Amino acid sequence: MRVALLIQYDGSNYHGWQIQTDPQTVQGIIEGALKIVFQQTIGIIGSGRTDSGVHALGQVAHFDILGTSIPSANIWMALNQHLPEDIRIIASQKVADDFHSRFSANQREYRYRISTSQNVLNRNSRWHMRFPIEPEKLRASSKVILGSHDFSSFCYAGTETENMVCEIKKANWIQENQGSLSFYISGDRFLHHMVRMLVGSMIEVARSKWELEKFNNLLNHPHRQAQVVTAPPRGLTLIKVSYPDHLQPDWIMEQQNLASPTRTG
Amino acid sequence: MRVALLIQYDGSNYHGWQIQTDPQTVQGIIEGALKIVFQQTIGIIGSGRTDSGVHALGQVAHFDILGTSIPSANIWMALNQHLPEDIRIIASQKVADDFHSRFSANQREYRYRISTSQNVLNRNSRWHMRFPIEPEKLRASSKVILGSHDFSSFCYAGTETENMVCEIKKANWIQENQGSLSFYISGDRFLHHMVRMLVGSMIEVARSKWELEKFNNLLNHPHRQAQVVTAPPRGLTLIKVSYPDHLQPDWIMEQQNLASPTRTG
Repeated sequence: MRVALLIQYDGSNYHGWQIQTDPQTVQGIIEGALKIVFQQTIGIIGSGRTDSGVHALGQVAHFDILGTSIPSANIWMALNQHLPEDIRIIASQKVADDFHSRFSANQREYRYRISTSQNVLNRNSRWHMRFPIEPEKLRASSKVILGSHDFSSFCYAGTETENMVCEIKKANWIQENQGSLSFYISGDRFLHHMVRMLVGSMIEVARSKWELEKFNNLLNHPHRQAQVVTAPPRGLTLIKVSYPDHLQPDWIMEQQNLASPTRTG
Repeated sequence: MRVALLIQYDGSNYHGWQIQTDPQTVQGIIEGALKIVFQQTIGIIGSGRTDSGVHALGQVAHFDILGTSIPSANIWMALNQHLPEDIRIIASQKVADDFHSRFSANQREYRYRISTSQNVLNRNSRWHMRFPIEPEKLRASSKVILGSHDFSSFCYAGTETENMVCEIKKANWIQENQGSLSFYISGDRFLHHMVRMLVGSMIEVARSKWELEKFNNLLNHPHRQAQVVTAPPRGLTLIKVSYPDHLQPDWIMEQQNLASPTRTG
């Protein structure tokens, strides 16, 4: 059977999601736990990579397994016993054989958090602004992101992807509480470093180093050698991965709490 | 001269504030940095102890030093270069010779955070409720805390303190954002484990294991052998320490951002 997992992790201590030569990746650690629980080597496929230092509250992955006595809805508990505190499986569920965590996904949502006051408790999950910013300028710049665009100007130069068009359904800056602002963005796909480059560039506008015009131009006149600013990974979190209705796992847990607020504050 | 420091720390990796036989305390680490910066052994005195795992965003400490070339307003920067990322000095300032971080303090404010949805990014800074709670019951129980009370029922049994009366000026539960509630409490003094025992007991009310009446009785009929619940340390943060006007350091930094919200959300 095919099993899907809903996964949270604090990416601070990992070299990203995907197994590299270095085993200290989230995927590597989870595969280690699967090996202990099922006494066999099991590979998992995630909905997408996250870079070193990037977090997830709603990563999805799947794996295949034959004949186990553990009910699929309980696998998450068994795995957590063999995982470190900064990686948590929130739910597990049997899914259709044609469910694919990556290829079936039709929407992904990310959050990027910045803080305007220093707070040591948030050092690994927010980008701390050491300069004044104007939140209204963040909101103004985020509006032009909506819709379908060629995001070549906001893509890691070394990428091998050819299709640079992404359709963005949501792009909102929200004041979460005192000293903390979050950017929520959802779309059908994202290019490598795209969210961090969009945020880094919007911050340039908000601190008045760039005119809004410059940001708009990068979006309307895409080019691969654009000089943009990449926000640090620690502020970025993969919040949610969505699937077509007939494939969407009905995670039992409280995932609704992880979704973004619907109104701006 | 006497110098006061405004200090933040993530208490997760320390055995509390105060130096014990174990040097892995916040005070011990800061004294280590002072020794490097000033090339002499300097002891610091904090406004109060915090237990293992408890955090601070507004701890205050002072020390005395003779003849240094570093301007007092810059000492914080020099210290930060020799401190780990989870301990940050936010400001430093010359204060009057009769300023005492502990004995001059006339008001302390703590925050206790709980979360109602699991979030791996908050694992060290919130108490995660794995059972349903009614926030209205938290608010109802917090109201009776205001004013002067004998808090014997909410004090660590092994304490050596004799005066059990504390005057509480603020005791509010506030919905910070989705899935996160904070209890803000300020008073002239606090007993050992008092905030954690108040929170643990209010949670008993909010999850309907206790009647509000039981909580009120513990407050109105204080006794040292009361059976109360102690909330885990990770949710607790020392937010602010205040001094009489003529002694209050006018910290240059953004401390206003650390104060609690003034209105309930």
